[in-house]
Amino acid sequence: MASTQKLFAVVVGAGPGTGRAAALRFAKAYPVVLLARTPGSYQDTVKEINDAGGKAVGISTDASDIKALESAFESIGKELPGHKLAAAIYNASARLAPKPFLEIKPEEFDASIDANIRGFFNFAQKALPLLEDAVSSSPHPPSLIVTGATASVKASARFAAFASTKWAKRALTQSLAREYGPKGVHVAHAVIDGVIDIPKTAGYSVNGGGEDSKISPDSIAETYWNLHTQHRSGFTWEVDIRPFIEKW
Amino acid sequence: MASTQKLFAVVVGAGPGTGRAAALRFAKAYPVVLLARTPGSYQDTVKEINDAGGKAVGISTDASDIKALESAFESIGKELPGHKLAAAIYNASARLAPKPFLEIKPEEFDASIDANIRGFFNFAQKALPLLEDAVSSSPHPPSLIVTGATASVKASARFAAFASTKWAKRALTQSLAREYGPKGVHVAHAVIDGVIDIPKTAGYSVNGGGEDSKISPDSIAETYWNLHTQHRSGFTWEVDIRPFIEKW
Amino acid sequence: MASTQKLFAVVVGAGPGTGRAAALRFAKAYPVVLLARTPGSYQDTVKEINDAGGKAVGISTDASDIKALESAFESIGKELPGHKLAAAIYNASARLAPKPFLEIKPEEFDASIDANIRGFFNFAQKALPLLEDAVSSSPHPPSLIVTGATASVKASARFAAFASTKWAKRALTQSLAREYGPKGVHVAHAVIDGVIDIPKTAGYSVNGGGEDSKISPDSIAETYWNLHTQHRSGFTWEVDIRPFIEKW
Amino acid sequence: MASTQKLFAVVVGAGPGTGRAAALRFAKAYPVVLLARTPGSYQDTVKEINDAGGKAVGISTDASDIKALESAFESIGKELPGHKLAAAIYNASARLAPKPFLEIKPEEFDASIDANIRGFFNFAQKALPLLEDAVSSSPHPPSLIVTGATASVKASARFAAFASTKWAKRALTQSLAREYGPKGVHVAHAVIDGVIDIPKTAGYSVNGGGEDSKISPDSIAETYWNLHTQHRSGFTWEVDIRPFIEKW
Repeated sequence: MASTQKLFAVVVGAGPGTGRAAALRFAKAYPVVLLARTPGSYQDTVKEINDAGGKAVGISTDASDIKALESAFESIGKELPGHKLAAAIYNASARLAPKPFLEIKPEEFDASIDANIRGFFNFAQKALPLLEDAVSSSPHPPSLIVTGATASVKASARFAAFASTKWAKRALTQSLAREYGPKGVHVAHAVIDGVIDIPKTAGYSVNGGGEDSKISPDSIAETYWNLHTQHRSGFTWEVDIRPFIEKW
Repeated sequence: MASTQKLFAVVVGAGPGTGRAAALRFAKAYPVVLLARTPGSYQDTVKEINDAGGKAVGISTDASDIKALESAFESIGKELPGHKLAAAIYNASARLAPKPFLEIKPEEFDASIDANIRGFFNFAQKALPLLEDAVSSSPHPPSLIVTGATASVKASARFAAFASTKWAKRALTQSLAREYGPKGVHVAHAVIDGVIDIPKTAGYSVNGGGEDSKISPDSIAETYWNLHTQHRSGFTWEVDIRPFIEKW
Repeated sequence: MASTQKLFAVVVGAGPGTGRAAALRFAKAYPVVLLARTPGSYQDTVKEINDAGGKAVGISTDASDIKALESAFESIGKELPGHKLAAAIYNASARLAPKPFLEIKPEEFDASIDANIRGFFNFAQKALPLLEDAVSSSPHPPSLIVTGATASVKASARFAAFASTKWAKRALTQSLAREYGPKGVHVAHAVIDGVIDIPKTAGYSVNGGGEDSKISPDSIAETYWNLHTQHRSGFTWEVDIRPFIEKW
Repeated sequence: MASTQKLFAVVVGAGPGTGRAAALRFAKAYPVVLLARTPGSYQDTVKEINDAGGKAVGISTDASDIKALESAFESIGKELPGHKLAAAIYNASARLAPKPFLEIKPEEFDASIDANIRGFFNFAQKALPLLEDAVSSSPHPPSLIVTGATASVKASARFAAFASTKWAKRALTQSLAREYGPKGVHVAHAVIDGVIDIPKTAGYSVNGGGEDSKISPDSIAETYWNLHTQHRSGFTWEVDIRPFIEKW
């Protein structure tokens, strides 16, 4: 088995919650690059990882902008020369507040398209060749793991923009799982079906508000790690993740 | 029951196949407006309907361009003054030839987004208020019927752009069905799962090539008409349509 | 096109609601045989059809009992000699009141299996050869149409017995649609997602209780007829049917 | 965290493949009871676990026979007094060779019902109270994990008996996941979508026959273990598992 010293992981959408938790979890095994539109999203996590003796790098970029994304990958190459990509996590999203369809402005719909579809399309085009290149040297099948939501499988009233672009993202992962699985790259999609327990949701009372009624980001990250470490003879394309108390 | 003289139907993506057949079918009951990017797509059908004693109008427009679409709806208002919209059929699409994901150019992906998502979003924002306005005067629940494909429910390898935007379109119809059903507007989605029998596919041999192994556009149009005439106590959101001989 | 004088339809589970309405609708085109466990379920409908100048026959049988079902088909042969089977509608069900899983008695689960799976299995084995035999003489593709429910696609808590046997029935129709479609027999499944407007539900207030908030059995029957008359180049396997006001 | 000394796991359908591998994997943490219809299915695995210093017990029973199953659970109580049930894996199945629907004999269909539905129903009624009783003392949420197949989500032609009973089993797990999740019991379903690499399939060449083109039972067992150890704030109901090279 190859040394893991020369591998790395990248997390896009590295804010509090799933992004931060995934970065921390994968940082136990790999240097981790955190990508987000603004340093405020990643700098605390980068510091936390580096302070704990791991290695993390934060880069500001917008995945929906191809040139910005290419520039980010060039920076990665300089920060981690000779490293191969073992795991890529696409966690960026743009959640529009639920509203009547006629009140969705074209620019709001565009923002959903940018974050949920175009950004992921661009990122996948950059990441997949790097993941494929790591197949022979990575101890686990190089993985592209994508964060979805309840709206990835159900398009409720007033969620037209969010749901349609989330379905598109899910379809994209399904197509890529079918194309890249046979190359040894594991593409997986997670349907996060519940409220995530982060500072922003601290005041939310869901399902009665008891203990563990919101999803621990660490539990999501652990499931992502378990996806990453699956043997290639038994790849999972999709998992759903929800609190034990959730109505579904 | 209200007179149907003051109602009309509109078909977007009015080329040979489903668009033409739907226009002919709905023209038995309503004046029909055919929208397409170029006159070549609709002019023969417009002539055929008018020659047969029906009423049809063709307008060139690109639904992904809001201003162009608004202009088209202004033209409709002039052509059919005082008419209310009984049925809208969104049949536009952009099918990219299957290809490896890395060979899909950003502009090709954009073209898929424009036809399958943005164009439909724009059209739905124009059509739904008109459909809602017709609820009290239309003999059948005003209907928005959307054409999908196999790729609307399955994202195969090499179909990343087509499938992701088709899934988005399907999600959009599901959200709209939930929002507009209670207003009395019937939103429905059809998964066309097979090769349609049109001049372009004349040379294709599918499933052995026997009689009726390709879908008759008229049979699709008949199913669309049956969706349109469903009673509001029993709306169907989705139908699948495929040749009897199809493998699925 | 062949004469329809020598064709017939059969409806299993011919009580008030979908069964009665389907019998009335198909009786406009064919003599209809109504099968139910007790005469009380079908005798009024049989009288109504015959009084109106149609032809209907009621036979008491239990489809989960093979010998009883064979006897019923022998009776049909005597009542309608030389007739071929154009349409078969399986509408029998056994709805167990929702209850905690541990409170479901084995005999209650068996009753669900009998009505939703075994009865349908037995009936399909009798009906499919007859439907296939009618392919060349029927003006519409001979059809087997099966009634499902919300629980056919969603297994809620406390619906373990009902949902599991409804999913089984849906799977059976999907497999049969794939096997018999290429033979020219149309197998279809309807997901009835709402409360049906029958005497038993007269007191139910659903979704605010407004007009058409329960499904008109006639609207279900009309959709079944539309499925039956689809051209074989465009078969639908599944439709969902729900009131415009339904939450889903 | 509670001691695990007084917990145990049970595996139903403990033949070579998933059953054996799951028993070996869970035996690393718990004493394991293996249930199968005949000793030939479990005795080698029991010996292997005990020889390696673990603890395993094999009991012959038929889960579709309530009395036999109750007797088996009494035996478990004697073999492992005071132990609570941390994990239950239902892996029994009855795979009928694909065949035309009309060739399926009623007794063959009954055998499918017995293994895939009735046996699971009976087992779940015995296991769930025991799992619930272990919630407060088990370090991981007590889990009921159920093995499905491709036919659990797709009912192909010629698979009528197998698919319908597999769909029923999947529905049952979905209903139980919704009912028992809020009680702290984790119910999960795995769609095994490929050929498992066991002695019986040694001669099969699938998808070109290369390395890892069949599913390693150990990889299934590892995914089951990962399901079992999920935190209750992030339960997965369903995973799909297939070889990287699989067409789907």
